[in-house]
Amino acid sequence: MTPQEITTWMHHLCTLAERETLPRFRTKTQIDNKLDQGFDPVTEADKAAETVIRNAIMQQFPDHGILGEEHGTHNENAEYCWIIDPIDGTKAFISGLPVWGTLIGLYKDGTPLAGIMHQPFTEERYFCDGTASYLKHAGGEKKLATSGENTVSQAILMSTFPYFEDKVQARFDALRNACKLTRYGTDCYAYCMLASGSIDLVAEYGLATYDIAALIPIIEKAGGIITNWEGGSAAQGGSVLACANKELHIAALEKLNA
Amino acid sequence: MTPQEITTWMHHLCTLAERETLPRFRTKTQIDNKLDQGFDPVTEADKAAETVIRNAIMQQFPDHGILGEEHGTHNENAEYCWIIDPIDGTKAFISGLPVWGTLIGLYKDGTPLAGIMHQPFTEERYFCDGTASYLKHAGGEKKLATSGENTVSQAILMSTFPYFEDKVQARFDALRNACKLTRYGTDCYAYCMLASGSIDLVAEYGLATYDIAALIPIIEKAGGIITNWEGGSAAQGGSVLACANKELHIAALEKLNA
Repeated sequence: MTPQEITTWMHHLCTLAERETLPRFRTKTQIDNKLDQGFDPVTEADKAAETVIRNAIMQQFPDHGILGEEHGTHNENAEYCWIIDPIDGTKAFISGLPVWGTLIGLYKDGTPLAGIMHQPFTEERYFCDGTASYLKHAGGEKKLATSGENTVSQAILMSTFPYFEDKVQARFDALRNACKLTRYGTDCYAYCMLASGSIDLVAEYGLATYDIAALIPIIEKAGGIITNWEGGSAAQGGSVLACANKELHIAALEKLNA
Repeated sequence: MTPQEITTWMHHLCTLAERETLPRFRTKTQIDNKLDQGFDPVTEADKAAETVIRNAIMQQFPDHGILGEEHGTHNENAEYCWIIDPIDGTKAFISGLPVWGTLIGLYKDGTPLAGIMHQPFTEERYFCDGTASYLKHAGGEKKLATSGENTVSQAILMSTFPYFEDKVQARFDALRNACKLTRYGTDCYAYCMLASGSIDLVAEYGLATYDIAALIPIIEKAGGIITNWEGGSAAQGGSVLACANKELHIAALEKLNA
């Protein structure tokens, strides 16, 4: 697939998803709980958006694979595999906050190639076509670039949750306490703030593949580094550390593994 | 002042402020730190926005008082006093997140009468004209009403920070652990999500008058209850507990004071 073809299709799929998500945002849409213990919500909007994305991919690219949060895997060993989180940040979605997004990633032979984060309420699309990363919004389109901040003590950190299991908490707190500022509750939006240079670090734990797949190329092609907390690949989720640049990545890994 | 006059002026003042805040959002605007220990940022945008709001009030209403976060008090014992936080959520602002807002409240004889929260990036204006509360945005205008949720275990809670001093932490955690879901990093946006029925509770500690003044009438005229953690007035800041309705307020106060 060419960068042009990828871009056209990512935007088209997001537009289809928007018709299912945005009309249900801030309404009394049906919310189900995926967990017996705890609260992991899924809404009609999540399910319907993933369905329209999958149907469009299967019709246009019958040989491609699909991995989606709500409706599982299909032909996942194909050369091209689409990885879908129809609403990343469902907790933000049901709370009325405009920091959720539709994530669509494209892996080629298991490696992240391209991806998009679409926030339809703010009309922002952060995406990578495989060669460079862009923000398209009501004001136009611009190329994304991460910040030059290379000192942890001057860095702004984001994480969706402040609380982790004990061993993880100590590692996260070592990084958090070294940073200038930490913000929570940010989901996919955090990685887009990193790619656009507004913040410098994102650290999260226990992510699924579909939480991070679309965001990896956006960050890498904006100049950032994204790995797990040991410095290995983040392409299958797990722990994730995203940094504005190489120097900051080395320094942040040291804090997490002191 | 009539509700019509109040509404016209609140919107006008927000439009003046927007010209100072929005062009500096997600740019490399000057950031200063107000603290010797810790990080409490103030930007050019905060200072410039408060200046234009103050100048407009002083010219139109020379007898009125003003209390502002950045530029202090003026004639504060007047019958009408305007209370200004030019950017509530400066940490969100410098992190690129669209959950900050310009807060302008109007007290009459020391009592909250009217207020507005304006988020110029999302083009949302949550406001109370002294009689009812509204959301005005790109899609039109609607009357605000809080949720009917009256059980803490089913409630969604918001708070800007997850961490407090020890004694306060135990009280906050007792409430948080009883709720269905807690979201952080929300500043003034949390109170607007409460007024519009998306969430059910907000609990914060250590607020200043200008952090809460504009939001009190918005919540009260949307059907909510807002007090401090002892059930007294929140009009001077301090601890703040905002609830969707009376029943939930009684139940939440019990958790905070168990």
